[in-house]
Amino acid sequence: MKLATYDRGSGPRCGVVLGETIVDLGREGDLLPLIVDWDRLRPEVEEIAAAGGGVPLSSVRLRAPVLRPGKIFAIGLNYADHIEESKMERPQHQVWFTKAQTSVNGPFDPIQIPRASPFVDYEVELVAVIGRRGRHITREQAPAHIFGWCVGDDVTERMWQHRTPQWSLGKSFDTHAPFGPWITTADEIPDPHALAIRCSVNGEARQTSNTRHLVFDVFDQIAHLSQAMTLEPGDVIFTGTPGGVGAAMDPRQFLKAGDMVCCEIEGLGHIENRCEAEG
Amino acid sequence: MKLATYDRGSGPRCGVVLGETIVDLGREGDLLPLIVDWDRLRPEVEEIAAAGGGVPLSSVRLRAPVLRPGKIFAIGLNYADHIEESKMERPQHQVWFTKAQTSVNGPFDPIQIPRASPFVDYEVELVAVIGRRGRHITREQAPAHIFGWCVGDDVTERMWQHRTPQWSLGKSFDTHAPFGPWITTADEIPDPHALAIRCSVNGEARQTSNTRHLVFDVFDQIAHLSQAMTLEPGDVIFTGTPGGVGAAMDPRQFLKAGDMVCCEIEGLGHIENRCEAEG
Repeated sequence: MKLATYDRGSGPRCGVVLGETIVDLGREGDLLPLIVDWDRLRPEVEEIAAAGGGVPLSSVRLRAPVLRPGKIFAIGLNYADHIEESKMERPQHQVWFTKAQTSVNGPFDPIQIPRASPFVDYEVELVAVIGRRGRHITREQAPAHIFGWCVGDDVTERMWQHRTPQWSLGKSFDTHAPFGPWITTADEIPDPHALAIRCSVNGEARQTSNTRHLVFDVFDQIAHLSQAMTLEPGDVIFTGTPGGVGAAMDPRQFLKAGDMVCCEIEGLGHIENRCEAEG
Repeated sequence: MKLATYDRGSGPRCGVVLGETIVDLGREGDLLPLIVDWDRLRPEVEEIAAAGGGVPLSSVRLRAPVLRPGKIFAIGLNYADHIEESKMERPQHQVWFTKAQTSVNGPFDPIQIPRASPFVDYEVELVAVIGRRGRHITREQAPAHIFGWCVGDDVTERMWQHRTPQWSLGKSFDTHAPFGPWITTADEIPDPHALAIRCSVNGEARQTSNTRHLVFDVFDQIAHLSQAMTLEPGDVIFTGTPGGVGAAMDPRQFLKAGDMVCCEIEGLGHIENRCEAEG
């Protein structure tokens, strides 16, 4: 099933996406309460979906599926080609940073080129949304804790990322975590580690890879994170970006106002964000 | 005013602390909604406080003032003596990392020595709680955005902090962000940069300093963070720890089950957490 948070003019609501239409689920707010209580609510959602009767997707504004995730953790250096272009060593341990919950952005909303520093770059990523609370989740248990999958762009301000050793602040600018366009529930993706993933800027291909090239796969990521902390419904994991980022091009290319960034993953749809100067 | 989230046996509630008593504010849940709507609710709270009639503080369990902060940002290397003991250079730019919202812990609740790794250390810190939403807050505007102050312990698992270059995961273990014991509203602290700050373990003094020794003061911190992102009511800022951490002692000392860690700041009270092995 494809579940979306959307707005038809009166604030966020929940919907189910059927082809080119969206069917309202009669619930205000984002998908989080539905995720928390999914086992109980799923039959009701399936019934509404079966009845159909939606409106065109093109007539609504899609929002981020979870508007204020409790946690957003993101892994660095997790595709071999991106490690190489970053001139880094393949890490022995998973390297994690965070994105602030205020950086969440809609799948088709603008990305700000900040006043503070303009060195903005794209990073297409497979995004996992946690469905079931847990700590010390094993690799084998991990699939049962994943509610579903999205396409994300781990937008990064490179100067703030690198002028101190800690990346999280440079990863946390407002609007720099667009994801969506909806959550594709886990049952629809038999193998999340075999999906074509790509990013283009103004129609020009920049990143082209497959999630089979992840260094640490998503199940290992969940096992590792949950050794330290309880993962909760609605938590969001950005699972790494492949090679091809603008900062590694020669000469370096950064995003500028007017650029259109399109991120796409096989079976999950695409998100597309126009860059604009921060007002 | 001293505002607390507390539990008298039926879940979190809001109270105002008067000496050794706590007066119930007739509100369930934590302080966040009160912080969001403080301008409107303050007169009502003052009226309840004036009527008195509380119960002994010793008869209730104090909880973290905000149970699920939207953001917890923490600054590293921000007291000269701690920079020296860490064998680091004084940073040119503010070095920020994060603590996960699931690491929040009550002011008198146990700190877990994790199964994953036992190298747990204390870091007493002045904690600022944001009251007013804002972006691009200037240093001069910063005081008006601070709702109040707490004592915090930026508990750190040193192995996970340092085995990759990114600190946020090692700072985010469950129970590793105790703060409180309550929020002292900003009007009661004329100068937050002139407060004695100390930490003891089992009664032995380990950290003894004064917030006047902060490298980047709290107003500069708010100005810097808000260049990147919108600060929101209930966001929490850990403002740095002075010298004396266990990892810098010779020989290194880490916390072990049974240890009592007491963190105290002049005018803000103290928090005290017993260490226990994760079950």
